[in-house]
Amino acid sequence: MDFTEKILSEKQIYKGKLLDVRKYEVVLPNGLKSGREVIKHIGASAVLAVDDENNIFMVRQYRFAAGEHLLEVPAGKFDRHGEDPLECARRELEEETGKKAEFWSYLGYILTTPGFTDEKIHLFLAKGLFDGKTNPDSDEFIQLVRTPLAEFEKMIREGNINDAKTIAVYTRAKLSGGI
Amino acid sequence: MDFTEKILSEKQIYKGKLLDVRKYEVVLPNGLKSGREVIKHIGASAVLAVDDENNIFMVRQYRFAAGEHLLEVPAGKFDRHGEDPLECARRELEEETGKKAEFWSYLGYILTTPGFTDEKIHLFLAKGLFDGKTNPDSDEFIQLVRTPLAEFEKMIREGNINDAKTIAVYTRAKLSGGI
Repeated sequence: MDFTEKILSEKQIYKGKLLDVRKYEVVLPNGLKSGREVIKHIGASAVLAVDDENNIFMVRQYRFAAGEHLLEVPAGKFDRHGEDPLECARRELEEETGKKAEFWSYLGYILTTPGFTDEKIHLFLAKGLFDGKTNPDSDEFIQLVRTPLAEFEKMIREGNINDAKTIAVYTRAKLSGGI
Repeated sequence: MDFTEKILSEKQIYKGKLLDVRKYEVVLPNGLKSGREVIKHIGASAVLAVDDENNIFMVRQYRFAAGEHLLEVPAGKFDRHGEDPLECARRELEEETGKKAEFWSYLGYILTTPGFTDEKIHLFLAKGLFDGKTNPDSDEFIQLVRTPLAEFEKMIREGNINDAKTIAVYTRAKLSGGI
């Protein structure tokens, strides 16, 4: 069944440093009009980086919006519209962990919260890790964490890892036999 | 390490039907000032409902923000601040599937996209399903889908299920031995 909503008008409500807030007038499948509010997002990549001893790399940082310190896999936004998701993934992995990877597998994408944003995060599994040029300690507000896979799974199970993309990239890697 | 950012000021930028956009001035751990933009969210619950034949219930709907039809587990926002997440989960399950459940397990929460929103979705496993009073067909824009667990896993693996909360609630249920 096709429930597509057609766009009648689009208006930018707010453009901040980070957020692009838009309001749309749409036609519902039954012909009635309705409003839609959307946070436009450029897109992002996230990486499950696994070393030869089956450790997972994460970063721990304070997330102001969430009001908590969170453990997350390396991830970040595209630096321009249409950036290759793999290029973004490589950059974010090296920036946040200092590592590069020999082997990359694409694990599809997720929509983080499709009720109000188009944010799409592309997921990758990275193996064959080796040292890059970046020193991750240069960002004083991010802490690099290396966790054995079994402990990482326990942290997801027990609610010590609560970041949606981190859980999703693990799950895709697991179900596809990559880890 | 404590990287907490202290709030100096808070300002509401936009309040729509759905979105509450705020801008903050904060102090970073190094003492410098910075700005933060946040979408405030009331909170939500999502339910992995599994029947006695190991089928998973999902809804298929058009998500305007994402620009796609998506398959998602039953979920929805709190109807007031401080609503019990389980109460919300029960309501959303019945509204979207017409089902009630005898057995409920709490599977913790996720932060859907902690870079720009405080949206927290509480996850539940529901078993012992039986018919409620609601007729889910009353919403003409939502299609109820019942999928065997093995097929559901295949859909996650192959990228036919891309909704973050749906993947996360499956993963927590799986790792905790609930499915």
